[in-house]
Amino acid sequence: MTQTAAALRREVPAAGTITDNDAAVLDPAVLGELLLGKWASVRRTARELAGRPEVHKIEGLTSAEHRSRCFDQLHYLVKNQAVHRAFPTSLGGHDDHGGNVAGFEELVVADPSLQIKAGVQWGLFGAAVLHLGTEEHHEAWLPGIMNMEIPGCFAMTETGHGSDVASIATTAVYSPEDESFTLNTPFRAAWKDYIGNAAVDGRAAVVFAQLITLGVNHGVHAFYVELRDADGAFLPGIGGEDDGLKGGLNGIDNGRLHFENVRVPRTHLLNRYGSVAPDGTYSSPIASPGRRFFTMLGTLVQGRVSLDGAAVAVSKLALKTAITYASERRQFNASSDLSEEVILDYQRHQRRLLPRLAATYAASFAHEELLEKFDGVFSGTSDTDADRQDLETLAAAYKPLSTWLALDTLQECREACGGAGFLTENRFTSLRADMDVYATFEGDNNVLLQLVAKRLLTDYAREFKGMDFGVLARYAVSQAAGRTVHRSGLRRVVQTVVDTGSEKKSAIALRDEATQHGLLSDRVGTMVAELAGALRGAGTLPQAKAAALFNEHQHELIETARAHAELLQWEAFTAALHRVEEPGTRQVLTWLRDLFGLCLLERNLAWYLMNGRLSSQRARTLTPYINRLLAKLRPHALDLVEAFGYGPEHLRAAIATGAEKQRQDEADAHARAVRASSGSPIEEKTLLARQAEQAKTRGKSSPRKARQVPEKSSA
Amino acid sequence: MTQTAAALRREVPAAGTITDNDAAVLDPAVLGELLLGKWASVRRTARELAGRPEVHKIEGLTSAEHRSRCFDQLHYLVKNQAVHRAFPTSLGGHDDHGGNVAGFEELVVADPSLQIKAGVQWGLFGAAVLHLGTEEHHEAWLPGIMNMEIPGCFAMTETGHGSDVASIATTAVYSPEDESFTLNTPFRAAWKDYIGNAAVDGRAAVVFAQLITLGVNHGVHAFYVELRDADGAFLPGIGGEDDGLKGGLNGIDNGRLHFENVRVPRTHLLNRYGSVAPDGTYSSPIASPGRRFFTMLGTLVQGRVSLDGAAVAVSKLALKTAITYASERRQFNASSDLSEEVILDYQRHQRRLLPRLAATYAASFAHEELLEKFDGVFSGTSDTDADRQDLETLAAAYKPLSTWLALDTLQECREACGGAGFLTENRFTSLRADMDVYATFEGDNNVLLQLVAKRLLTDYAREFKGMDFGVLARYAVSQAAGRTVHRSGLRRVVQTVVDTGSEKKSAIALRDEATQHGLLSDRVGTMVAELAGALRGAGTLPQAKAAALFNEHQHELIETARAHAELLQWEAFTAALHRVEEPGTRQVLTWLRDLFGLCLLERNLAWYLMNGRLSSQRARTLTPYINRLLAKLRPHALDLVEAFGYGPEHLRAAIATGAEKQRQDEADAHARAVRASSGSPIEEKTLLARQAEQAKTRGKSSPRKARQVPEKSSA
Repeated sequence: MTQTAAALRREVPAAGTITDNDAAVLDPAVLGELLLGKWASVRRTARELAGRPEVHKIEGLTSAEHRSRCFDQLHYLVKNQAVHRAFPTSLGGHDDHGGNVAGFEELVVADPSLQIKAGVQWGLFGAAVLHLGTEEHHEAWLPGIMNMEIPGCFAMTETGHGSDVASIATTAVYSPEDESFTLNTPFRAAWKDYIGNAAVDGRAAVVFAQLITLGVNHGVHAFYVELRDADGAFLPGIGGEDDGLKGGLNGIDNGRLHFENVRVPRTHLLNRYGSVAPDGTYSSPIASPGRRFFTMLGTLVQGRVSLDGAAVAVSKLALKTAITYASERRQFNASSDLSEEVILDYQRHQRRLLPRLAATYAASFAHEELLEKFDGVFSGTSDTDADRQDLETLAAAYKPLSTWLALDTLQECREACGGAGFLTENRFTSLRADMDVYATFEGDNNVLLQLVAKRLLTDYAREFKGMDFGVLARYAVSQAAGRTVHRSGLRRVVQTVVDTGSEKKSAIALRDEATQHGLLSDRVGTMVAELAGALRGAGTLPQAKAAALFNEHQHELIETARAHAELLQWEAFTAALHRVEEPGTRQVLTWLRDLFGLCLLERNLAWYLMNGRLSSQRARTLTPYINRLLAKLRPHALDLVEAFGYGPEHLRAAIATGAEKQRQDEADAHARAVRASSGSPIEEKTLLARQAEQAKTRGKSSPRKARQVPEKSSA
Repeated sequence: MTQTAAALRREVPAAGTITDNDAAVLDPAVLGELLLGKWASVRRTARELAGRPEVHKIEGLTSAEHRSRCFDQLHYLVKNQAVHRAFPTSLGGHDDHGGNVAGFEELVVADPSLQIKAGVQWGLFGAAVLHLGTEEHHEAWLPGIMNMEIPGCFAMTETGHGSDVASIATTAVYSPEDESFTLNTPFRAAWKDYIGNAAVDGRAAVVFAQLITLGVNHGVHAFYVELRDADGAFLPGIGGEDDGLKGGLNGIDNGRLHFENVRVPRTHLLNRYGSVAPDGTYSSPIASPGRRFFTMLGTLVQGRVSLDGAAVAVSKLALKTAITYASERRQFNASSDLSEEVILDYQRHQRRLLPRLAATYAASFAHEELLEKFDGVFSGTSDTDADRQDLETLAAAYKPLSTWLALDTLQECREACGGAGFLTENRFTSLRADMDVYATFEGDNNVLLQLVAKRLLTDYAREFKGMDFGVLARYAVSQAAGRTVHRSGLRRVVQTVVDTGSEKKSAIALRDEATQHGLLSDRVGTMVAELAGALRGAGTLPQAKAAALFNEHQHELIETARAHAELLQWEAFTAALHRVEEPGTRQVLTWLRDLFGLCLLERNLAWYLMNGRLSSQRARTLTPYINRLLAKLRPHALDLVEAFGYGPEHLRAAIATGAEKQRQDEADAHARAVRASSGSPIEEKTLLARQAEQAKTRGKSSPRKARQVPEKSSA
């Protein structure tokens, strides 16, 4: 615990009536260890590195300077052995996939550009060679990729096709005559676009193209392609341009690439999942082109996993800064003439920050489960088809929630710190600008949630194979069929609690864990069942009609996926909570989990009411109960952000250094000095109050009455 | 109508079954005129200016370059007579207050930094001299302020006091001996902060300080203070520093200022509302210090009014770009093998953009009413105390909604354009960075909404003077007392419709105008009454207890104010709609207003259900009805953004220039050419489809099956 945090906490008044329970004190060290999770040691090492000035973002650099700095930093990461954990032990790595991602995502606190540029080099370009290539590719290129001799690109996205990879139009046509592929970009929309390292640094690229041999298109495959010569000039047939300035992440040289009759040796096809023999014969260990495509893309899920983790880390940073400031900053003196309130004592301020704190905890615990799942699949310890599908679904569910949460949290924290929040030195705006694109890259959030919804529907259909969907939907709605749909949730859902408003059931409080779970899972189950009913028979309709039917439910589909993802987060939070033995910590964490769960209920309260899951009477108690939880949690807010384990070298925000407290103390000392020198009695009044009092004694009312006036200020 | 818009509209398929009504076509010219409002001519002139390259933001400049450019642009505005409309005719202005704000807010489309830097010079610094000073001040300084000989600052906010202006700690102590004030900054927290023009350009400032004379503090007053000599060096006793980089608006040199024994002549007190005689005697035309304080601040309401207008303008820009792109961009081919869908045809995409379009229309019409109110007060044609209070309340209600709407809209549009949205060339990220601080300056949004709520409570109390609040609350809740609380709404509310779920009332459709109005106003009325009941007797409690009681309802208070502001927006939208005679335009605008109203109901649906205002049955019809509205509005989306009247010189977004359509056409032409050269029949199939077909005939399934796969892409 930092001294400042300890000092400030002592100043915090206890909220409401004190009972034994309410007097709980949490141990930030215990909680911190829980948050660090399975790869605690890797995280500690990575955070030590991320705290060094060498890797920090310098604000205000030109784009060229920032790019150059990030490029140099990649060499620094190599030198400090920070980025090779996932590579084969035989090549100097550790075959440690989970640890690798854990280490990567901590880089975001140094500079998101660095995280992503490192991710391009080792997590996308290197990982594509590793996972899509075979041993001779590994030997040929991985050493150079690992040590940065070959800075490279992951050239998948095209200007005309972002989220629809299967439709990319770059072609690689095989010619048996010279045993090579010829790469072509048929038109402008088929240029590779938004490609990291493409504008300047990339010497080579893994290029995704439609593989055509003997006149047959075998779909999207990956090719290792040399891009530039030693002087950095494009090789013949290759062209490109700079994507230019972006809303953030300007340390990365994103660019466009196009190909005109570029010859690529047959052996440069990364052929783990599809090979072309010298005579042009295509073969693959996976017969179905669709399955092959998904398998190839599936090896790249780690991008989403690490974005999820990075987004969680950034939310933690933002909340630590904003909550520290809110515990020091005073504004308005509603409750006393003598001193102003600390802004975190205002209910609205608590409402703005604490539910986001709860959501960040939920996302953090959920991410840890995702990372373990990822490690299981990639280490081979739990690597069935079902495991891989679950991993894909989980990543697709969590990454949208955590990246949106980070943006929302950064913005609310920035506003909650007022004008100070807008200064770059306090980092909210800079981090927000960088994190913005996390919502759409490595899978657009809305598209990812659709995938989750489809998986839910598939599981649902599988469970009730052969049955009529319409009947099912009615059954599910009336019976609360939550139980049936959570295969992809990795665990079964307990019996749903339906609050019918009856007296007996009314006794179940909303803060009850089983009630929360029942309500959340019931909603998911019912939404899935209703969707399944609505989409019943879509498969037998003509394509256009099926698409129209599907489109009419697209919004619902995505909302269903979100509800599912939130349920999974709630479950992860609860599972983590159950591992805490220290009673004070467990108590506070339980309140925080309740806050998370009840805010989810509050946000979807209309659904619970319309569907008869909550009575109006019960529903009315929700918001007041949330308000009481806020007051309960408020004294623990500093401990809860301290448990995140980020120090000043990570925050690097002027307003989180105690500067505000120093200013407040100085103002107070000044007032005391004035009182002392003017010989007034030792009353706890500020200079201004004294002046106001003087005004009053002269029969004029004080301007202090004119309080709570918003500024008309300074632009 | 631009050619592109016309061409694209023709391609849009009609939605659903066509009836006479559904075939409505709107006339963008008619609608555009309605949107331009009372100051159409000023807006046209201002937009012509804002379209010139001389005033455009150049992206990627260093902060120093951007500041210097903006400074030069202020001179350009002077030369082009763009900024003097509010100043006295005698000094070369036009005494046109409404027109002045209308012209100012259009500057935001050129560069928000320019809008705000101009606002600092003429809207804050100049306006303070104009409104707080007297004739001799006007003659001495206004000419130099108007022509930029005196670049100046508006030095109100202090590091330690943002939203609480009454508590600022800078002092100005009068000394009869030398007939001057001495300015002092007592401690670090009292430095003036975030002050535009303070870091570099400001030669003078209007400084707000506690006026103390003959030992009495008369509260906050404004002083004209010279800051720098002709070489730009601080005058003796004055110091300061640069605020440094900000999240946006880096064309403005914000900085800090502090004062140590700075002498200011007695005559430099801007003394319209408070004077000090040579002997130190204080006098004021306003006896109450509280009222005096509010009156002085009240003259500065135009800052909020113009931020409201600027935020609306930016939302319009963003939506025009995003909706244009969404009408050209194709992705996934769900409904046909032959071509991909335009993304605006996806329900989710409509859900993301069209409700924000509706809200932007509402905010635009509401802003126009605010501007007329402002003009009435400042021109003196409607300048009672009640008018001024209404103006303050309206500005405090609208500015939070429109600035948050702009941020939300920019972000959704940015994400809806995917990676392209993140490129600076498409302006979403740049505008968002600049607009960010609009949510907290000129009055923090949350603080402003509290002021609105307090006004609602005051009106409510006045209406029921002498009555018991508890009784009233119960009365109001059961009787739906919306009628009683809308003084500050500027118009009375019609009889509330309560949907009890009975068959008869169930016949009233949610799209019915009176029903929407009844539901929205009933909610506001009930919330106010409930609050009044909850806070009853707070005035008789000890200060700390009263503050605690108030704090327990702070969140509710702010939500009540928001509900009120949304109701006013709905009313402004409806009033504007009623002025449209052209039936097609009126029909489409009615759907859009319905979308706005129904989305408000949807967002607060839980409230309507819990409070028995809507039956579950009725509530369930809401979302499907909104979805149908989206489909109805979709063919008119391009017309609706065209009516905003912004041209390519305002949008300046690469993706809104038709480039995307050109790329799509080229891709299509390429596919046709390939088919022609390969001699295949003239079927409407793309190259890839043909290739896939070849694959199929060889007994392999096509990779096209693997569609709707999100990208794993390019960072």
